[in-house]
Amino acid sequence: MSQKSGLTKRRPFQPTPLKRRSPVPPDFEIAQEADLKPITQVAEELGLLPEEIELYGPYKAKVRLEVLERLKDVPNGKYIDVTAITPTPLGEGKTTTTVGLSQALGAHLGYSVVTCLRQPSQGPTFGIKGGAAGGGYSQVIPMEDFNLHLTGDIHAITAANNLLAAAIDARMLHEASATDEQLFERLFPKDKNGKRHFARNMWNRLRKLGIDKTDPDEMTPEERSRFVRLDIDPDSITWRRVIDTSDRFLRAITIGQGPEEKGMERKTGFDITVASELMAILALTTDLADMRRRIGRVVIGTNRRGEPIDADDLGVAGAMTVLMKDAIKPTLMQTLEGTPVFVHAGPFANIAHGNSSIIADMIALKLADYVVTESGFGSDMGMEKFFDIKCRYSGLVPNAVVMVATVRALKMHGGGPKVVAGKPLDHAYTEENLDLLRAGLGNLLAHIGIARKFGVPVVVAINAFATDTPAELELIRKVAVEEGGAEAAVVCRHWELGGEGAVELAEAVVKAAEKPSQFRFLYPLDIPIKEKIEIIAREVYGADGVDYLPEAEAKIEEYTRLGFDKLPICMAKTHLSLSHDPNLKGVPKGFRIPVRDIRASVGAGFLYPLLGTISTMPGLPTRPAFYDIDLDFETGRVVGLF
Amino acid sequence: MSQKSGLTKRRPFQPTPLKRRSPVPPDFEIAQEADLKPITQVAEELGLLPEEIELYGPYKAKVRLEVLERLKDVPNGKYIDVTAITPTPLGEGKTTTTVGLSQALGAHLGYSVVTCLRQPSQGPTFGIKGGAAGGGYSQVIPMEDFNLHLTGDIHAITAANNLLAAAIDARMLHEASATDEQLFERLFPKDKNGKRHFARNMWNRLRKLGIDKTDPDEMTPEERSRFVRLDIDPDSITWRRVIDTSDRFLRAITIGQGPEEKGMERKTGFDITVASELMAILALTTDLADMRRRIGRVVIGTNRRGEPIDADDLGVAGAMTVLMKDAIKPTLMQTLEGTPVFVHAGPFANIAHGNSSIIADMIALKLADYVVTESGFGSDMGMEKFFDIKCRYSGLVPNAVVMVATVRALKMHGGGPKVVAGKPLDHAYTEENLDLLRAGLGNLLAHIGIARKFGVPVVVAINAFATDTPAELELIRKVAVEEGGAEAAVVCRHWELGGEGAVELAEAVVKAAEKPSQFRFLYPLDIPIKEKIEIIAREVYGADGVDYLPEAEAKIEEYTRLGFDKLPICMAKTHLSLSHDPNLKGVPKGFRIPVRDIRASVGAGFLYPLLGTISTMPGLPTRPAFYDIDLDFETGRVVGLF
Repeated sequence: MSQKSGLTKRRPFQPTPLKRRSPVPPDFEIAQEADLKPITQVAEELGLLPEEIELYGPYKAKVRLEVLERLKDVPNGKYIDVTAITPTPLGEGKTTTTVGLSQALGAHLGYSVVTCLRQPSQGPTFGIKGGAAGGGYSQVIPMEDFNLHLTGDIHAITAANNLLAAAIDARMLHEASATDEQLFERLFPKDKNGKRHFARNMWNRLRKLGIDKTDPDEMTPEERSRFVRLDIDPDSITWRRVIDTSDRFLRAITIGQGPEEKGMERKTGFDITVASELMAILALTTDLADMRRRIGRVVIGTNRRGEPIDADDLGVAGAMTVLMKDAIKPTLMQTLEGTPVFVHAGPFANIAHGNSSIIADMIALKLADYVVTESGFGSDMGMEKFFDIKCRYSGLVPNAVVMVATVRALKMHGGGPKVVAGKPLDHAYTEENLDLLRAGLGNLLAHIGIARKFGVPVVVAINAFATDTPAELELIRKVAVEEGGAEAAVVCRHWELGGEGAVELAEAVVKAAEKPSQFRFLYPLDIPIKEKIEIIAREVYGADGVDYLPEAEAKIEEYTRLGFDKLPICMAKTHLSLSHDPNLKGVPKGFRIPVRDIRASVGAGFLYPLLGTISTMPGLPTRPAFYDIDLDFETGRVVGLF
Repeated sequence: MSQKSGLTKRRPFQPTPLKRRSPVPPDFEIAQEADLKPITQVAEELGLLPEEIELYGPYKAKVRLEVLERLKDVPNGKYIDVTAITPTPLGEGKTTTTVGLSQALGAHLGYSVVTCLRQPSQGPTFGIKGGAAGGGYSQVIPMEDFNLHLTGDIHAITAANNLLAAAIDARMLHEASATDEQLFERLFPKDKNGKRHFARNMWNRLRKLGIDKTDPDEMTPEERSRFVRLDIDPDSITWRRVIDTSDRFLRAITIGQGPEEKGMERKTGFDITVASELMAILALTTDLADMRRRIGRVVIGTNRRGEPIDADDLGVAGAMTVLMKDAIKPTLMQTLEGTPVFVHAGPFANIAHGNSSIIADMIALKLADYVVTESGFGSDMGMEKFFDIKCRYSGLVPNAVVMVATVRALKMHGGGPKVVAGKPLDHAYTEENLDLLRAGLGNLLAHIGIARKFGVPVVVAINAFATDTPAELELIRKVAVEEGGAEAAVVCRHWELGGEGAVELAEAVVKAAEKPSQFRFLYPLDIPIKEKIEIIAREVYGADGVDYLPEAEAKIEEYTRLGFDKLPICMAKTHLSLSHDPNLKGVPKGFRIPVRDIRASVGAGFLYPLLGTISTMPGLPTRPAFYDIDLDFETGRVVGLF
């Protein structure tokens, strides 16, 4: 094995035999027919102690962070990121490949392995998308748990996010009708002995205001006034409410129209919960104390003097942390072949960084020889953010990138007809067409090039579909290695065969990960905001330059003034093109990136320039997926969730 | 023992010794210092098989409904409801008495016992109220779990409620811009073989419309049109969104103000999740299939012809049931003395019936000799609904009522100064005042009388406070028995002493529950709506009669036309008076009840007349409870949650 210490983390492991059928049945049938190991066994095989897990039923367990302390001296395993070329709207099987590769490593090659995945939002599950647990014979099970509440992390984020939102509006209402002295009396009620106290959640605001009193009564009138009145500018508020439902009617709403809130109404809206900054915090935090700090720093807007107001100013960050205290623990599940999976966090891949949690990866790297983690969308999106944001905050070093490519997507980049979800595929995609494919290979080469800019070896996983021909698959393989400089390019059939279909891929990944790491970030943090944006635009997207709209210029100035300019950049861009324009396929050239606006996730720790209109709340179609979803009372099983 | 079969359900039971201190420390200190048994041990002692529970960490477990099948031939234990006189706004210790009584029965008298409690909403926990796990040495632990997410049931209801809400608005939007033929095409997309299908969630609507086709293409144009167009009248929609946060700015809002929903905006609002009809359904359902049926029947409004539209018409009831499939399982916890507790459901006690779940009680009665369950507010509220709604749907027969009374509340009813939360108590309440107390005893007598109307024996639990004098306590005791006809009246000190302080109460309850049941409902279902309301108003509230506002008259007519008049009645009344006016203390006389409006919870199965303005969304005060709540990173414990 290739541990730094020369030791392997292999332990006795019982692979779950697949009951494969041909043709491959629907995903939910495979998932529901699968044999499951008790999660206690999965945990034990992984080397977790019984007291380090908390069971949530027989097939899910939360993993306690104490395991990191116990294993702090164990060297990390190899860290593998799975990314993709620019996908069609159908997706190119990245999760399926992530799972299939893990099944190959763990159940066929005998390595210890952990798969790290994001938790999907329930919104799309009931709306347009269906489940997200992989596919075919490469899935995470039980898929009902994976796609429904899991262990409640997203619900905890909803609760914490909305407690902050309620606190903002309630505070503005109370401040509007009270003098400073009244606010003081209410914020510092006398106890039985006539004494006032600073509540624990007031300490950070006191520090920020430079007030070093320990008895509220000792504050000067000026200090009292500064402390008790937040004076939030309602027009400055960027904090929105969230809900884990696809509910487009909540995108833009007016609140405070009740008779008791008269005069305080304002426009705002709901995002889907996974778009909450708290989800990004959950994904980027490294321990409970760090999460508490980040939550306290969440900026919700400014006061009327333009100074940022954060969750600590509102005194609510401690309670928000308490609401998320269990969410910080990754959830252990298993693949169809019985290898362990950590499911943890699921931030948006445009307005946030689209990667599963640092904590899950940290724990996994202590427990396994190989950790396979997936980043959202293509290498220009999730992978770039994986390296420049996630690895920067974690300090973890990636060892290899798996680049998923399909004949279908490459033909689209070569000029094939539009691919639309729900519509039958054009025959260009289902019949051999080497010219079309060749014309699209530039997209793959560009993505390999992006990964190599970070100094990480690339293995191309050619995710084979039934209609692909040997000549097509071979063409991709050859070009990826000979022209792209990939370490290897391997045809995989894990959807059809499970881990067995990805053994060759796994072997190539093991070999690539042996190479000494040359990993580097694309940009340093201590350069101006515009320079960071331009490096990403030129080096990753291939743009000629960047143009800033006035809103963006103003924000850059403001954020620089506030000291937020040292944060990494999280570009909110379409994933359907290397450029900002989803219609530009292949390798777009001769374009400039327009930055319309910039937002700050100060708690999570990044700035996100908006390159287009990014919807943060999906809608339901006329016939949502929920029409098929029900309980079968004969079998007690969920039907229609796929 | 007093089982019908003559058999006891006593099993080996290890009481947890209390580490009592004097003076009694704050609730959270007691809770955090307490010894906890593994919940597997609690389950085993209760006679649950390992495969009948699903662990949620070491101290919580969900109980599977399969246990009911295994124990279907076991006779039920004794069924004890804990209610109270008309309380002060501070509450009179009903939960604490429920827990203390259980600790006495289980840990001191050796009976097998289960306590059944409601799950509290997180809104008030972070707002004004703090936790709800009992108090002193009579608490449910771990109190953090009890007061936070528990096992996610409330979050599941939020998700299901809001999926229905999103479905309503999305459907109206899609119908507004599509012809019947377009809707048909979208609702019945052709599969690969060119065939259309009815989705599972369409079956109930088909049946309702009397369409017996099995192939969508066989429907006549008229049938197609009837099926695909719900034609919801936006002004008729009563279904609101919910959130488990105290957020007053969501009470009245305008939704649909985004550019893509133009022309569809409408006024609506959010309630707190526990006010959702789905919470009432969870509390009143008896199994999964019944829950699916009730959810399907939830009426959200009418079409433009005035016909009710329900969740089955929207095709979303199956998915809602799937979201709530785990919520239907009660959560097992423990008291400070190690007796088992089921926590399950927590519907509002005014617009809903305010009782924990039927399912928890059903399971508990099979497992234990004594089941102690609490109903919300006073006997005029939660207890009346416990008998007339909950027992009617469950078929279960109560054996005794415990009526909690305090010197404080009785003095208030005697004309004592106003009791206000957060303000110090007037000395009238903390010094002996037998005249004031005597003047208020009528309220206790009235409540005993209400319980006796149902044919159930009453034991009065006089919840003693440190400032109560022996003469005061004895006066209550004497009047309750001699004038009120209570079986017994017992001074209890379970707050200070735990179960030991309620042993005498427990013995009186055991004795009372031996009496053969004379239980009867207050009214039959097959009389007109107005007659049912008037029986409750006269017999329970002591009113001279009932007046109906025009809105109420119209609803009575409409609901009678729709056949909803056979449902039981759930009065939405203040709990602070036997009358509809919270200022009328003691035993109000010479008043008439005004019914302003009537609403229907058709899925849950009751009509609720509104006697005043009932807030279904609390607000946050200037200094919410969240200011104190944080994590202590030294100990890893939650602080400030009490």
